[in-house]
Amino acid sequence: MDSKEAASAHSGNEITCTAAVAWGPGQPFSIERIRVQPPQKLEVRIKILFTSICHTDLSAWQGENESQRVYPRILGHEASGVVESVGEGVEDIKEGDHVLTIFNGECGECTYCNNKTTNLCAKFRVDASRSVMRIDGKTRFLTQDGKPIYHFLNTSTFSEYTVIDSACVVKINPKAPLDKMTLFSCCLSTGIGAVNNIAKIHQGSTVAVFGLGPVGLAVIAGAKTRGASTIIGVDINDDKRIKGQKLGMTTFVNPRDVKTSVHEKIREMTEGGVDFSFECAGNLDVLREAFLSTHDGWGLTVLLGIHPTPRTLPLHPMELFEGRTITASVFGGVKGKTQLPLFVDQFMNMEEMKMEEFITHELPFNKIDQAFELLIHGKSLRCLLHL
Amino acid sequence: MDSKEAASAHSGNEITCTAAVAWGPGQPFSIERIRVQPPQKLEVRIKILFTSICHTDLSAWQGENESQRVYPRILGHEASGVVESVGEGVEDIKEGDHVLTIFNGECGECTYCNNKTTNLCAKFRVDASRSVMRIDGKTRFLTQDGKPIYHFLNTSTFSEYTVIDSACVVKINPKAPLDKMTLFSCCLSTGIGAVNNIAKIHQGSTVAVFGLGPVGLAVIAGAKTRGASTIIGVDINDDKRIKGQKLGMTTFVNPRDVKTSVHEKIREMTEGGVDFSFECAGNLDVLREAFLSTHDGWGLTVLLGIHPTPRTLPLHPMELFEGRTITASVFGGVKGKTQLPLFVDQFMNMEEMKMEEFITHELPFNKIDQAFELLIHGKSLRCLLHL
Repeated sequence: MDSKEAASAHSGNEITCTAAVAWGPGQPFSIERIRVQPPQKLEVRIKILFTSICHTDLSAWQGENESQRVYPRILGHEASGVVESVGEGVEDIKEGDHVLTIFNGECGECTYCNNKTTNLCAKFRVDASRSVMRIDGKTRFLTQDGKPIYHFLNTSTFSEYTVIDSACVVKINPKAPLDKMTLFSCCLSTGIGAVNNIAKIHQGSTVAVFGLGPVGLAVIAGAKTRGASTIIGVDINDDKRIKGQKLGMTTFVNPRDVKTSVHEKIREMTEGGVDFSFECAGNLDVLREAFLSTHDGWGLTVLLGIHPTPRTLPLHPMELFEGRTITASVFGGVKGKTQLPLFVDQFMNMEEMKMEEFITHELPFNKIDQAFELLIHGKSLRCLLHL
Repeated sequence: MDSKEAASAHSGNEITCTAAVAWGPGQPFSIERIRVQPPQKLEVRIKILFTSICHTDLSAWQGENESQRVYPRILGHEASGVVESVGEGVEDIKEGDHVLTIFNGECGECTYCNNKTTNLCAKFRVDASRSVMRIDGKTRFLTQDGKPIYHFLNTSTFSEYTVIDSACVVKINPKAPLDKMTLFSCCLSTGIGAVNNIAKIHQGSTVAVFGLGPVGLAVIAGAKTRGASTIIGVDINDDKRIKGQKLGMTTFVNPRDVKTSVHEKIREMTEGGVDFSFECAGNLDVLREAFLSTHDGWGLTVLLGIHPTPRTLPLHPMELFEGRTITASVFGGVKGKTQLPLFVDQFMNMEEMKMEEFITHELPFNKIDQAFELLIHGKSLRCLLHL
């Protein structure tokens, strides 16, 4: 498509477009016409072309905790699109640019952004409780009769147009296929980033991945790219075996088929344990197995799954003295604006990433409820919505 | 003294000497004559000249847990001495060598010893439950009437002579003062090792140390040597203020004087938190404060204190997503036979370590009960026993 044409008609004005608005916890989305204000200082208005759904959207839609219950609201954070217009002071992005949205921004100027060991940002780090724009505390979405519709995770991509702080918008190579690139907006970057930035997996590393959803599968793909020699995938769903193998998994373990504990099985298979384990299931019992599956002396466990439980870590302090370390990362430790363009370029130069393995379904935007159903019932990895 | 003379008289024969034998949990030590067998294959018999007492000895003496209740037993693990004789196959140590004992050995040949990221050893890692020699499952200590007296922590240094696997004996520079060097056998190496090997503190790092016993004070001294710019010491005992300052602490915090929580106080003092925190108190509530005192995004907490509690870590998994990491190390991650000789040489080339700050008391060996009393009542840091 001609990006310029797609994006140029409305600059500076309010746009009326279609969005999927959440009006209450678990209620079907209302596909309705909304008003989108022009971008303010350091903001960008984007025509969303593709968006997908991850568990964070699901959790917010269901209103799992108090702070998430802000309505009406536009959810969605994994998306790609074309810049329609930019606000004052935006220098790195212009109308027509192909972009990805990032829920964990990078202002490029704060103490954190200037520290190479973290991808948190003082201003634009992920903040599930924020629902208005940072600069003026207002929303850029209005109902037809002028009432505010709230923002979500710095992004709000379930809308034909959205307004996002430029710190949360990443310009990518215009030749990259935007549909597939959408996955770099969240799940792929989280998994591959954790492999590269947090674990720093190297040639010959041994790896176990617990939970083969899109993030876990991205870890597998990333570990293979870095030359891991053993990549064990663990999931209670046998259907994940073939998917994992396609992406580079060398062994599949279904905990239901294991007579001992999973960590004993893995230690047995790997002469004492893996170098790295990744917890992508968001379950504390799984976390404990992941932790104990690593080799004593040098094992590192990286948490990627979100844990809604109030329970604390089921690990005894003395278990750390066996030389195991535990850490976690948001968005795979990826500094979005710095690293994502490189990820995209790397993808364009290789055949291995097999993005099509992640996109199991595609639907038109107005079928968003159906896409949520697929996710709830574990039938989809990623369902790409076309706007 | 003339080391050769001290060590040469008994080679190959049984030696009768004095030891402090523990006959039951918390019972006064029995200072008695025992028989010490010659060293077997890959073992070394050492004339102990100095030994001190740390909390691990105290805990074993009190028989805090089931596996520790093995009697009669010779405790003690922090010591220095002179080699009396060596068994078959010992090549790196000979009669007359000045040595330190290490409870966490280094065989130099196993997968672990060949891995530069860990100081665990497949054969000679610390093992509180082992009470006999590895090669034949027997003891080298006998009572006068020939009954076995059990070993402790690969070392058993509360005896004029002891037999130790050569993997747990480190030859050091004979010019180094053996009395002070004794502290490198455990507490100093644990603290300094954690600074160098685990945290890898660098010029300008900010550090908080929780619990200013000998290990915590060694962390302070080590952090100062590495150029840390801020070193905060935390202890409920105000007497530790001066001691800490002498070793390089820049700020002292007594939790009893803090109105908010200690971590809030420390974050306030350090613009968001320290780069590294060390838990040297062996207390889970302190551990939580230590963890939260680090800067989000890159903070690392290193556990050094022993936690006898059955409680698990009081940390929520999502708290790790703030970019904080937690780990622990035995013996400061120090590979004893490789690193201790270097530590000793470094010490001899500098004035800063101030070992005398750690040795608060010295007593003759037969006053060992008095030395335990000093430790129990928190009156001593290290009490050096002269044999």
